[in-house]
Amino acid sequence: MKLVCNQSDLNTNLSLTSRAVPSRPTHPVLANVLVVADADTNIVTITAFDLSLGIRTSFNAEVIQSGTIAMPAKLLNDIVSRLPEGEITLEDETNTEENTGEGILVTLTPRSGSYKVRAMGGEEFPELPVIEDTQPIYLSAASLIEGLRGTLFATSADETKQVLTGVHLKVLPNALEFAATDGHRLAVVETINEGSDDNNDAELEVTVPARALRELERMLAHSAQSEETIALHFDQGQAIFEWQNQRLTSRTLDGQYPQYRQLLPRQFQRELTLDRKQLLSTLERIAVLADQKNNIVKVSIDSGAQEITLSVEAADIGSAVEPMPAQISGDDIDIAFNVKYLMEGLKALPATEIVMQLNSNLTPVIFTPLSGVKMTYLAMPVQLRN
Amino acid sequence: MKLVCNQSDLNTNLSLTSRAVPSRPTHPVLANVLVVADADTNIVTITAFDLSLGIRTSFNAEVIQSGTIAMPAKLLNDIVSRLPEGEITLEDETNTEENTGEGILVTLTPRSGSYKVRAMGGEEFPELPVIEDTQPIYLSAASLIEGLRGTLFATSADETKQVLTGVHLKVLPNALEFAATDGHRLAVVETINEGSDDNNDAELEVTVPARALRELERMLAHSAQSEETIALHFDQGQAIFEWQNQRLTSRTLDGQYPQYRQLLPRQFQRELTLDRKQLLSTLERIAVLADQKNNIVKVSIDSGAQEITLSVEAADIGSAVEPMPAQISGDDIDIAFNVKYLMEGLKALPATEIVMQLNSNLTPVIFTPLSGVKMTYLAMPVQLRN
Repeated sequence: MKLVCNQSDLNTNLSLTSRAVPSRPTHPVLANVLVVADADTNIVTITAFDLSLGIRTSFNAEVIQSGTIAMPAKLLNDIVSRLPEGEITLEDETNTEENTGEGILVTLTPRSGSYKVRAMGGEEFPELPVIEDTQPIYLSAASLIEGLRGTLFATSADETKQVLTGVHLKVLPNALEFAATDGHRLAVVETINEGSDDNNDAELEVTVPARALRELERMLAHSAQSEETIALHFDQGQAIFEWQNQRLTSRTLDGQYPQYRQLLPRQFQRELTLDRKQLLSTLERIAVLADQKNNIVKVSIDSGAQEITLSVEAADIGSAVEPMPAQISGDDIDIAFNVKYLMEGLKALPATEIVMQLNSNLTPVIFTPLSGVKMTYLAMPVQLRN
Repeated sequence: MKLVCNQSDLNTNLSLTSRAVPSRPTHPVLANVLVVADADTNIVTITAFDLSLGIRTSFNAEVIQSGTIAMPAKLLNDIVSRLPEGEITLEDETNTEENTGEGILVTLTPRSGSYKVRAMGGEEFPELPVIEDTQPIYLSAASLIEGLRGTLFATSADETKQVLTGVHLKVLPNALEFAATDGHRLAVVETINEGSDDNNDAELEVTVPARALRELERMLAHSAQSEETIALHFDQGQAIFEWQNQRLTSRTLDGQYPQYRQLLPRQFQRELTLDRKQLLSTLERIAVLADQKNNIVKVSIDSGAQEITLSVEAADIGSAVEPMPAQISGDDIDIAFNVKYLMEGLKALPATEIVMQLNSNLTPVIFTPLSGVKMTYLAMPVQLRN
């Protein structure tokens, strides 16, 4: 293998793939990235794969001789990221005189100096999964980011919770629905799939690990234009996201996802319209005291005054009370929440004004944007203890 | 106590002092800041003290009733930092009807809402140390920052090394010398004390813990103009730094500081002039491979070519070699260093070009700025093992 590329291209693509390199590889070859250079197309492809999450990216380079090699991911990334801008030549020992018999020696030659790194043959590197014979779903990068941003935060961080550690993706006619719950709250986003065609009418559901989707979100933010089309391939074992020169693959989570739609009430006795940022910043102050105790914040709804009052009592430490205006319909009520769940939901709701809908102080409460994205956030109230 | 102040003033001053609040206080009162309000001067003073490091700052406020109170530092800081800009009224229970008998309740009233925090009387809060009857040394903030920046990095992080965990300050006629060593390298900065007067001729030496000086550096960077004059008071137990409305006190470290001047060679057989940034960025690349082994980088000096070559051999992993130009006088030599000590010194040297002076490959090597600040950095070479 011999190729000449830009430091910035190599650096960007190594950084993008590095997130799929396991920090404690179960097999030595997984600590590597697979570098494939193709002299016919002048394209270099870099792949990292931890057997669950796989990332593949490619870029243009002057490929003098085709080849495949597995190079130590962290070491290569650390060196290349510190090299100055400009051309780098990458060449393995089959083109040089050096062969010590202990693996393959790859030489990186930047403008000045020379770096040699011991590498492995590419044969042992596992193949990235492929999904054949399924029609992909197409979604704009903006819609995909919207769906991820509105749900990822609500997944469970507890590995024993299995399917709850992922985001559930459900293909609807001309739409894709994202859902996440950790058992205490639920977030649902329905993205409008404008680029859909006849192929999208299949009823498909998969649950993809949050870890893979967080990487997807990061990659999209870095490398995709918002109008760019992303192809999603699902089957029962794998999910694959593909655009431009990039591909992310992830295993899916086994198990039945909760029937979350049943949790959402259809009718409400009370409805409030609130300024999201004001509510969030007030909760952040209140949370300082709530943190000291049981994280419970009390919300007192006063329709006469058209205001809500947030309050917290932390015995022996202090207390706080803060009112804020609201448009309220329905009777007065006191209701209590875990302040963290409330704040996380409010941070994710993409709207200036939000609608809060509820029935009693012990049934699910729904938060939605007043307009825009179709996101629903459900928080369960907690019992008020005085 | 009752006072009205700006949120931003209270927030800034709480942040500044918070670094002297111990995370695990040996006595409950030390988890507090002492707030003193003076109705005669309309000045509020905030003090934090962990019995070693003390920070006191003050600001103007409308003080309606004088008073002294110890308030929980972290809780107060967390609340105030989240309050909106604008006036805050702070009032303790001696002015209100509330007295539950469990400490003193202090009420913070921002524009909207109300926060109550349980506080303690100020009597138990320890006095900050004072130094009487000594003439201070005066130094500009810029000189003090220069001295700290050039030495703090070279102190030892190993608490058992006692005096080596501090910076040694030595009063010279019209100058202040800063020195730090961890046994492997030595940094010395001599600051010119332009604001000196006849009072500065006392020969004084103290060693101040790095932790306190890092806080001093941070405070100076935030709150002092570079031409501002800082007053330094030293005696055998305490060092006090004072300017404007701020004061930092620190205990000093007991024990004899090494006679570091003896370590600096007076004559050199070889001298190089090097571009600091180029040398540093080359070392950062080389360090990627050196990190994998024993951190040793080899420097080969070639006076014929007027260049040095940096190289590293990490068996089984890789190797690197990179040349860079240098102005060299003296014979060729190979010399090896711990790459980390070399990089840390180069980062701290405040100059575009630096001078490297040496005799043999096993005697101390000196790095100095070509011009500007009087800083000396000594690094011991290590034995080359092939």
